[in-house]
Formats: sequence, structure tokens, C-alpha cells
Amino acid sequence: MTRLASVHRVPMRHPADMAGIEALFAARAVDPAHIVAILGKTEGNGCVNDFTRAYAVSALATMLAAHLGTTPAVVAERVAMVMSGGTEGGLAPHFILFAVTETDAAPTGALAIGTAFTPEFRPEELGRMAQVEATAAAVRAAMADAGISSVADVHYVQVKCPLLTSERIAEAEVRGATVATHDTYRSMGLSRGASALGVALALGEVAAETLSDAVIGEDFRLWSGVASASAGVELTRNEIVVLGNSAAWAGGLRIAHDVMQDGIDFPAIQRALSAAGLAAPGQLTEDQRGRLAALLAKAEPSSTGRIRGNRHIMNDDSDINATRHARALVGGVAAAATGRTDLFISGGAEHQGPDGGGPVAVIVES
Amino acid sequence: MTRLASVHRVPMRHPADMAGIEALFAARAVDPAHIVAILGKTEGNGCVNDFTRAYAVSALATMLAAHLGTTPAVVAERVAMVMSGGTEGGLAPHFILFAVTETDAAPTGALAIGTAFTPEFRPEELGRMAQVEATAAAVRAAMADAGISSVADVHYVQVKCPLLTSERIAEAEVRGATVATHDTYRSMGLSRGASALGVALALGEVAAETLSDAVIGEDFRLWSGVASASAGVELTRNEIVVLGNSAAWAGGLRIAHDVMQDGIDFPAIQRALSAAGLAAPGQLTEDQRGRLAALLAKAEPSSTGRIRGNRHIMNDDSDINATRHARALVGGVAAAATGRTDLFISGGAEHQGPDGGGPVAVIVES
Amino acid sequence: MTRLASVHRVPMRHPADMAGIEALFAARAVDPAHIVAILGKTEGNGCVNDFTRAYAVSALATMLAAHLGTTPAVVAERVAMVMSGGTEGGLAPHFILFAVTETDAAPTGALAIGTAFTPEFRPEELGRMAQVEATAAAVRAAMADAGISSVADVHYVQVKCPLLTSERIAEAEVRGATVATHDTYRSMGLSRGASALGVALALGEVAAETLSDAVIGEDFRLWSGVASASAGVELTRNEIVVLGNSAAWAGGLRIAHDVMQDGIDFPAIQRALSAAGLAAPGQLTEDQRGRLAALLAKAEPSSTGRIRGNRHIMNDDSDINATRHARALVGGVAAAATGRTDLFISGGAEHQGPDGGGPVAVIVES
Amino acid sequence: MTRLASVHRVPMRHPADMAGIEALFAARAVDPAHIVAILGKTEGNGCVNDFTRAYAVSALATMLAAHLGTTPAVVAERVAMVMSGGTEGGLAPHFILFAVTETDAAPTGALAIGTAFTPEFRPEELGRMAQVEATAAAVRAAMADAGISSVADVHYVQVKCPLLTSERIAEAEVRGATVATHDTYRSMGLSRGASALGVALALGEVAAETLSDAVIGEDFRLWSGVASASAGVELTRNEIVVLGNSAAWAGGLRIAHDVMQDGIDFPAIQRALSAAGLAAPGQLTEDQRGRLAALLAKAEPSSTGRIRGNRHIMNDDSDINATRHARALVGGVAAAATGRTDLFISGGAEHQGPDGGGPVAVIVES
Repeated sequence: MTRLASVHRVPMRHPADMAGIEALFAARAVDPAHIVAILGKTEGNGCVNDFTRAYAVSALATMLAAHLGTTPAVVAERVAMVMSGGTEGGLAPHFILFAVTETDAAPTGALAIGTAFTPEFRPEELGRMAQVEATAAAVRAAMADAGISSVADVHYVQVKCPLLTSERIAEAEVRGATVATHDTYRSMGLSRGASALGVALALGEVAAETLSDAVIGEDFRLWSGVASASAGVELTRNEIVVLGNSAAWAGGLRIAHDVMQDGIDFPAIQRALSAAGLAAPGQLTEDQRGRLAALLAKAEPSSTGRIRGNRHIMNDDSDINATRHARALVGGVAAAATGRTDLFISGGAEHQGPDGGGPVAVIVES
Repeated sequence: MTRLASVHRVPMRHPADMAGIEALFAARAVDPAHIVAILGKTEGNGCVNDFTRAYAVSALATMLAAHLGTTPAVVAERVAMVMSGGTEGGLAPHFILFAVTETDAAPTGALAIGTAFTPEFRPEELGRMAQVEATAAAVRAAMADAGISSVADVHYVQVKCPLLTSERIAEAEVRGATVATHDTYRSMGLSRGASALGVALALGEVAAETLSDAVIGEDFRLWSGVASASAGVELTRNEIVVLGNSAAWAGGLRIAHDVMQDGIDFPAIQRALSAAGLAAPGQLTEDQRGRLAALLAKAEPSSTGRIRGNRHIMNDDSDINATRHARALVGGVAAAATGRTDLFISGGAEHQGPDGGGPVAVIVES
Repeated sequence: MTRLASVHRVPMRHPADMAGIEALFAARAVDPAHIVAILGKTEGNGCVNDFTRAYAVSALATMLAAHLGTTPAVVAERVAMVMSGGTEGGLAPHFILFAVTETDAAPTGALAIGTAFTPEFRPEELGRMAQVEATAAAVRAAMADAGISSVADVHYVQVKCPLLTSERIAEAEVRGATVATHDTYRSMGLSRGASALGVALALGEVAAETLSDAVIGEDFRLWSGVASASAGVELTRNEIVVLGNSAAWAGGLRIAHDVMQDGIDFPAIQRALSAAGLAAPGQLTEDQRGRLAALLAKAEPSSTGRIRGNRHIMNDDSDINATRHARALVGGVAAAATGRTDLFISGGAEHQGPDGGGPVAVIVES
Repeated sequence: MTRLASVHRVPMRHPADMAGIEALFAARAVDPAHIVAILGKTEGNGCVNDFTRAYAVSALATMLAAHLGTTPAVVAERVAMVMSGGTEGGLAPHFILFAVTETDAAPTGALAIGTAFTPEFRPEELGRMAQVEATAAAVRAAMADAGISSVADVHYVQVKCPLLTSERIAEAEVRGATVATHDTYRSMGLSRGASALGVALALGEVAAETLSDAVIGEDFRLWSGVASASAGVELTRNEIVVLGNSAAWAGGLRIAHDVMQDGIDFPAIQRALSAAGLAAPGQLTEDQRGRLAALLAKAEPSSTGRIRGNRHIMNDDSDINATRHARALVGGVAAAATGRTDLFISGGAEHQGPDGGGPVAVIVES
């Protein structure tokens, strides 16, 4: 028997809208028992007080538990549910279901999926080497789970990670522990950064000796070209999903990736599409568009305050958070390339690609 | 003697930053006396309480008055200064100077510029036929000013128009007049809509008999493919700038336009670029990018709540105004095409292109 | 046997935080079976895309269902759960549980509670007379449920009502129905307004012949002095909770109310407190503060743009919604009076008290 | 001859609205040559990209220059113009003019005013001891200017201070200098904190040996009870206005102050009012209200995330900045006390009063 990965993109009308997923179950297009991971782009602000992520996870766990005859807690143990808040610009709220089935078909070198979790973190571990190292170990575990042995075959590593809240900081300080920052918003960046460096460490993108607490969130020359980390208030451990191609898997899906050097690096998206079988001059044709199963990218404001020499205002805007601007921008660039808006553009790309840029991965049906 | 239009794009560090423009004067690249219009993309919210537009106009008028030995009020009479607020996503705050000089060179069918102003509007005229008709008359005056006789040679008509504030509404009602709306934010849309229909009327894009107070802001099947209207609290009349190509003008600049059918209509931008001499598969090359003198486009959320079938959240977001999302999206798509972020993307495209889309014009140096 | 109402105020750390309520159950301070209504102040934006309300309701229904051995749907049928989004300024997110028990004690003329629900509304009924009349009928049913026969004994009527979303509007229009507005944000105001007029109609505060579709959201001289309506995307019918004093009920709680004439009507709050037994010059003392079981008030921006002659900017601010400003203001004024921040200040007071003001009710332990 | 201070509160319709001030000049109520300081509450966001402050200063300087027959630059040298952004909740945008005239009348121990400026700061000096010490020196100079010799007679010290922008940080780093923070929003807090500690140092509220770079923005047990600091992008030095009572000054104005221990410390406001001659149980009467010339207070979120034990959400809200919430709250509390909304509530109270509280000063006409 060979493993076969399937990817289903499902629109949502609100964060707890399960109708689309239940319709897939009813039509037997997906068996709930085969789902290993769910990514979601929810319509909150993607920042500290974005409860749309937790709300979606709660609805998903409750719904899946009913289908599987178990409890939401067991579902959350078994299925990596990674919600990323923020559908700025024209982005469409949607879920992406990843399912794995067994098949008699011959292996094709197709999309392979592996998942893993770190242990729970204490507040004082977030944004520090403890989080980096636990993440690296979990990435290796997820690769093993996926049957991927070469780091060159890994094209996307999704990490969902915790953040510090006023309450969590207070809890740590009562115990005499110190936290990496008192700024809750900043803690999201440090947690994402430590997680991305964990991926880079596992994949050999950075050397272990270059890493320390001091470089996290500071030395952005260190980065991973395949990591995508999202922070959410609703969890206290890192959840890892590794996506790659594996000679041992069957099916018609292929994944490829590239690295955007800045927020308007349209050619990088075209290269990734082309590597996965969707070469196009300009926007994908309607037929090609239908074959795009998912686009997954990171977005962040450049710390220089510039894009190709021109000033952007993301870092100086006190009305709209910088990550919201960045998601809107990269969402527009990726929509230009693909002709679609149901794209998984996730904000906060610390140590995920170069400053102001980020990884972009595409999954394509052949 | 032949007229010759020049276009200078100048970055701004804040809305009152005149340093870039003054440097052009000091270098004798532009003579202040030749300036006929200034567009500006300022970094406010682009909505009711965006004072960055008025602040920039105030700084420009004061600065030009000093150079020209006159008063700011006289400058404002003579130079159309049209600021559009909102640099969401990665857009760069900048000014675009339009200057006209006389030359001995032969005419080349190059970029031609004409300006005109309507009389001052009373609050009760905004968003109604009085504004439509006054705008149409001013467009015809601006075409005459530019020496453009065929409407086919008009590729962009910029209109800056007023809005209703709580105070202006009260002033009208004290006089017993009724206004088109009590919602100040909505008044911006009605004023832009009436202005765009005025352009469409002047250019024969809509028939006079189809127009009435009732269709303004309601029947979006009526639209102009070249109008771009911005509303601002700082003025009480419409300011009109017509841009086209004219057999009577000299120089190497050409303007072309197309109409985006939705917010992600990348091919429409490519067609406009190509028509103006910048054909490219994908993003413009660095050399081509340097020849792009300006890109001017409108952005708005589709009223259907959808882009190519997928839901967007612009109209249901109570934290970020819908026009801000739309500018960020179209800014991303246009940056994908051009590789630049100093683009004049203006929000609120009522009756300016089809629902959810809008005109896009490009000025290119040959 | 006599009925006895109890009121428990429970802080929440996030919208789905059930720990405080479960602790009350564990300590046998409240029996889950006795709960008839739960009000909640959640930390979303209180506007169209505020999902904290639905998230809290989902968590409450699931939690109560587990305690009561039933389903969340049955809980939602039985318990009125009215979440109001928005804790601007210093307001504290919290739940208020209303429970009713039977007792041998003699009646004391204490706090009485009654609940009722309207049928489900179609989108085209919202903000129109259909909603007014169904609400009036439900108020009468809730008074009967509470054993209150005189409208003078009614001091607070909470209504939770639906709103229009882009999707609901489209659904209605597919059927050929027309809706009261296409502006989803505005639909919240119309729905609250129609609900409040329903309360006023039931209590004789307005005459039936003065009401029509045309006055809803327009003629703000028509209002209720006890209605409090909140709109939320998560429901499609009106939920009604009537609070008053009844000769037939036992216990030490008393409710009183007054009407704030504007957003800074501190004396009105003092009068309501005094009528319920908490007279104080200035802020309540620490002892009095402990006896305040709940303060429930409405907040809205004055449509004149003025407070006692001075301009406010609520209606012209495109970054922060007007209702958010208004809640922050009234929250500050009520905190000044009470020395507490866990106050149920609810935004959007259309037809709930005079323009710019609103009802304020207090429940006090004797 | 004796000096006499006058205070005029002038509403503004927008940040550049000079009509109210010019009407005072026209009516000879104020002589432009006598103005020594202007405070302004403008309607921007009060954060990094709030250009309403600079816009108002620009309009004031230009207008005064015209009246005084000089240049705006000379006006800015001579008159301290301190704009504070943010009129959240119900606060009214307004200017407060401080003028000083000579009189034959006998001294009355009335309101006295002194002003001073620090030298210009380099970016690397902001938020550090260099700023503390320069501010302390300027406070002593302003006291001397006011003829106040005892620190007990100082009731309010307004400081306007610079902030770091992306551009200023880059400028410093090009020179090899390091700045106190790379977070532009955080730089506002550090600059205000250093300024407040400068006031505290000058007035003996803190001991010199307790101060160092490390305590700024960190050890909030160190604070001034009379400092009020506002940060603005438009200046590069500190501007100081000292207000107190002096035996040498004439007139009927008196100033008093108190310290709010938290954001809802209504009794502290009542004590300050009472000390200045406006004792009231509850809100000021209409007559008293007319005698209140100005209320000046600081607002900030408590760093504990709590107010009297209840959670607030200011620090965890990524849609509305924490200082905006805090101004709305304190504005509501102060409006409750005074019955007015044209109050100078300024955000960001680092080292200005205890954590979560702040100084409040009132100027009253006898």
C-alpha cells in the first residue's frame, strides 16, 4: 500500500462555518478519519486579540469529534489545526484540508505530509533557544512521519506557535521567571522567529553555532526558505506540518517553492508555479488556475522602511498593524500571479526568508 | 511654439515634505511657473478624517507661492492640486508634478494636459445632478485647454471633489436645504460617483437621458473608463485634470489606459502598459520600470462581496474601511506588474469602471 | 414557593473562558439548571465582524449542555444569551449570570426576570415594522413570564437582535425581496432601532400610530427609556430579557433606572444608583461598590456631532467606529460614578433614550 | 507693573482651523503679541503617524506670523506650541491660548507661566539621560521665567518631545550611533518618560542618583506628579511650559493639581477642582462649569492589565492603540466630574504619576 495526499480548499462564511467541510464529508469526497492537518485563513486581525483563530479551531475540533466519535481534545491531539488570522486586501477566508489515504497505485514522487508537536512551552521559553530546539526536533519527527529523508525534498514547513499575553507574563513572573518581552504584540514575532530558526536548524539552512537567544528577532540574515510560522493565543505548544515530495507517495499533486526577496517579488511566485508545472507569462489561465490546489506564502514589512528604494508606511502606521499591510500587499501580488484570492498568506515572517520577503510554496494538480 | 508636458514623480517623507520638489527647482529640472497640476498620494486613511491631504495642499501652496512671488490662494486658483489619501499595503507616499513648457521641437502626438474647475458647490448639490453637470462642463473646458478634440484621445480624467461633514450638513439644514446623505463617509462615495458620471457624460460614455439623482451611487452599470475621482474635506468645488495624447504636443511621453474588470485584473494593467510601449511577460524589467513615469488606477471593493466567486471581507470589516482594503489589493496587483510601489492608486471607484474594478492609466517615456 | 433572582458577575479572560462560571458551579454558588439568561461584554469591536459574541455563545452553550446533559441547541432555546461586543476605554470583559430559584422566603418586591424570543426573521423583516411588532409581543410574553403586570415596574429590557450581512442580503434578493439597507453596518442600527421601538410599543412609551417603517432609524424623538438592544451576526431572531421589581419575588436585589440625556450625564447615573439604594456624593465608596450587582447602560454618539455645544469627532472618524468611541465615553462616566469597570455598556442606542443619551439601569444588593 | 496670565479655550473644526483664534484677535480679547504658549488637542490618532499635530502647528505659526509681521520660524522660536493628538470618546478638539500681559493691578498670587526649550536632540539622545538632564535644566529655566521660586508652587509642566522615526533611526545608524529602540511607537513612550523624569529631577520629586538610562521606561515607581509629556514627529527638541501660582502675578486665575492613582480616580479630580475653588458633590454645576478655564490630565493604560482588579484590554488590542483607549477612559471620567468635554487629556503617561494613573491640573477663574 502507498500513501496518497489530498488537498481540499473550502471557503468559509465565518470562522465557525463548517458547512463546506461537512458537505465534502456528505459527498464522500473526504473521509474525516483521513484528515491529518487543516490550515485556515480566518478574517480576524491576525494580531494579539484575534479570536477568530481559536473560534475556528474550536468549531473544527467539535465538528470532527462528532464525526469521529471522540472528543474535541482528542481531535486536537491528532490533527494539526493551524489558523492564520488576517484576510486583508482581497484575500478570501478559507480552510485547506490535508488528508492521507492508502492506495494500491504506484508511487509517483507526489506530495507527502508529516506532522508533529513540541511539548508545551512555559512562557519564559517562548522566543528563546528552548523553542528553537524543540521546534527543530519536531521538524525532524514530522519529516520521518512523512517518509522524507532529504531536506531538499521539503518545500514548506508550517508552524503554529504560542504568544505571550499579559496574563501569561504575570504567571511566569509570579514564579520568578523572566520572559523575552513584556510587549505582547512583540512576543508574536519572537515566537514566530524562534520557530522559523528551529526549522532552519533542522533543515541545515543555518548552522547551530550561529544561534543563541540574542539573534532571535535581531539578526535577520539568519532565515529559513521554507518555514511559515503563525502565532496564536489559543495554543501553548508548537504544531508542525511538513510538506514535500516523496518517492514513496502516490497521486498527482506536486509541491514546489521559491523565496520572495521582497514583497513585490512576482517573478519568485512565477518560478515556484513553473517548478510545480504551471508556467505562464503573466497571470495563470483559467485552466491553470483550476489546477492550483494551494498557494502558501509569508508576508512581512521590510525593517528598512523601503521596498526597492521607495518608502512604505507599514512600520509607522498606528491605525493598521504592519503585518496587516504586508499581508494585503503580498496577497495582491500573489493574486496577480494566480488569478485567485483564496491564498494562504500569513503575516509575520521573522527569520522566514530575507527581510521584507518570504517563502512561497505552491501545490499543483498535474 | 509647441507645448510639451513633463511628469516628475517625487517621494515625500511626510505630507508637508517639500524637500524633493524644492530640489528639482534648485537643479532647474522643473520651473515652478510651469507646473499646472500636482497629484499626491498621502499617507492618511483616505476617508473622512484624513487631514494629510489638506496638510499637503497647504504646504504645496505655501511653498509654490514663495517661489512664484504670490499668495497660496492664487496658487490654489492656478494649479490643480489633487491629493489622494491612503498608502495601504506597500504603496509609497509621493507627489506627481505635471508641468507644461513651450518648445521649438516638432509635435509628436505626445502627452497633453488640460485643467479646469467647477464653481463652488453648496452642500445640497453634492452627489446630485448639479455636480454631474458642472463636472461635465469642466471636463469639456479642460479638453479645450489641452487642445484635445476627440474623446478617444482622453485617457485619464482626475477629479478632486468635496464631501459632506457634520458641519456642512448642519449649515445646509439651517437654510432648509436637504442633503443627499447624512452619513459623512457615504457622502464621499456619492460625490465621487457624481463626478465620475460627469466625466462619462462629457466623454459620451453614458447618455444624458440615463442620468438622474436616483442613479448616482445606485446604478453601477453606468460608468466611465477614464475617470478617477478623489474626495477630500479640504475643498468645496471640483478640480479637473484631463490627460490624453495630442497631435499638437511635443515630447516623448505617451499615455494609454485600460479598464480592470475586477481588483485582480493583472492582464488589464499589462494591456495598458503594452499600449503605451511597455510590453512584458510578467513584471517589467528594471529598464522598463525606469521608463514608467506614472501609473494611475482606481480601486474599490466589489459590492457583491466576491472576487471571481470567492468571498472578500472588505465590506464587512468594521476595523479597516473597505476602500483601504481595496487600495492595498490593487496596489499589490499593480506593483506585481510594474515592480514599483510609487503608484497613484486611489480608492472609491463609484461609477469609475465596472463594479469592483476600475480604470488604469499609464504614462511612459519612450 | 416564591421565586428568587440572583445575579453573578464573572470576569472572562477571553471570549470562551468558562473557568469563572464553572468555578461557581463547582462551589455550588449557582446551579446551572437555574440559569435563565447570560449577558456578556466581550472584547471584540462590537460591529459587523465581531465574532467574539458568537464565540462566547458557542462556548457557553457547549459548557452548559455538558452540565445539563443536553445539547447546545437545547441550551440556546432555553437560556437567553446576549453578548455585547466592545470593551473600549477601561471596560472589563465579563459575564452576568441571571438565575432563578424557588424559596420558602416571603416575597420582598425584589428583582424579577422574564425571557422570551421572537420567531426567526427573514432578512427583509429586519429594521422594519415586522421586527417592531414581533418584539413588542415578545416583551409582553417576557413580562408575563416574570410576573410583572405594571409597565412601571419594568426597568430594563435587553434585546439581542440580528443584522444583515452581504450573504443574507444576497439570499433575500435572490428571492426577489428587498432589504431595509445594503450597508451591513447600518443594518445593525436599524435592527436595534426596530427592536427598541418594539419595547417602547409594548410598554406604552410610544403610541402605535406613530410607528411605521419610515420612522425607524430616522425619527429619534421616539424612544424607550428602558430598552437596550445589541445586534449580532450570530442570531436570526430577537431574544428578550425583561428585568423589573415584582411584589411576588423574594431576595435582596432591587433594580432601578434613569435616562442619560447625553453621554456625560453623570447625575442620571447617580439618580439611578440612589433610587436603588446607593446614594453617594461623587464616586461610590468601596462598601457601596461591593453592593452593586450590575450596571447596564446604552451608549451612542449624538447625531448633532456635539455634546453640550462642544464638537465630538465620533461620526467623522474613519479609523474607529462611532459606537466604539461612545462606549468608551459612557464607560468612563459610569466608572467615575461607580468605581468599577465591569459594567455592561452596550453601543448603538437608536431609539433607546434621547439622541446621544440612553437608559441606565442598576441592580443593587440591599 | 505686574504680570497677568490669561487662558482662552478655542474650539477647532479641523486641525488648521484658525477662525476661532482670529475672532479673539478681531474682538481684541487677545493680543497676538502676548501669546506665550498654545496647547492643542487635535483629532489625529495621537501616535506615530498623527500629522494633525504638525498641521495645526504649521497653521498656527503661519497665522501668528502674519499678525506679528514676522516668519513662522520666528513664531515657533518664541511661542511654545504643544499639540496633543487624540480626542477619543467624547473629547472636543480645541486650542488653549496662554497669554501674558502687564497690568497696574496688585499681585494676587495668581496663575504664572514660564517657558523654555532644550537644545535639539540627536536621535541617539532620545529616551536616555541626555534628554532627562536637558529637560531638567529647561524646567528650571522656565520656573525662573515664570518668577516661581518654590517647587511647591509648580502645578503643571507641559513637555512636548520628539520621537524616533524609521528615517531618524537610519540617520543615526549611518553615523554609527545606537538608538534606545527600533520600535518607533515605543520611542514615543521612552521620550515622554525621559522628559517626565527630567521634570521630576528638576522639582526634587526623584533623586538624581536613582536615575540612569536603565530606569527610563522600566522603573515606573519613579514619577512626577505634575509632568505632562506629549511626543510628536514634528519637532526635534523639548518644549517646556511651566504653570504655577506666583505671589508676583495678578489676575483671578488659580491652578491646582492632584494625582490620579488609576484611570477612574474621580475623587482625585474632585480634590483638584476643590483646591482651585470648585468644590462640588458630583458633577460641577453649570455655573461652576463656566469658571473652569482648563483641565489638563494624563492618561495611560496600567501595565498590570488591571484596574482595581478587573482586566482591561488596552494592552492586548491590536486594532486600537492602548493610549487611545486610555484617553477615552480618562476623558469620560473627567467629563463626569466637570460636565465638559473640551479637556486636555493627553496620552502616554510614562513616569507621569503612578502606573495607570497620572497628574490632573485645573485652572479656575475665581
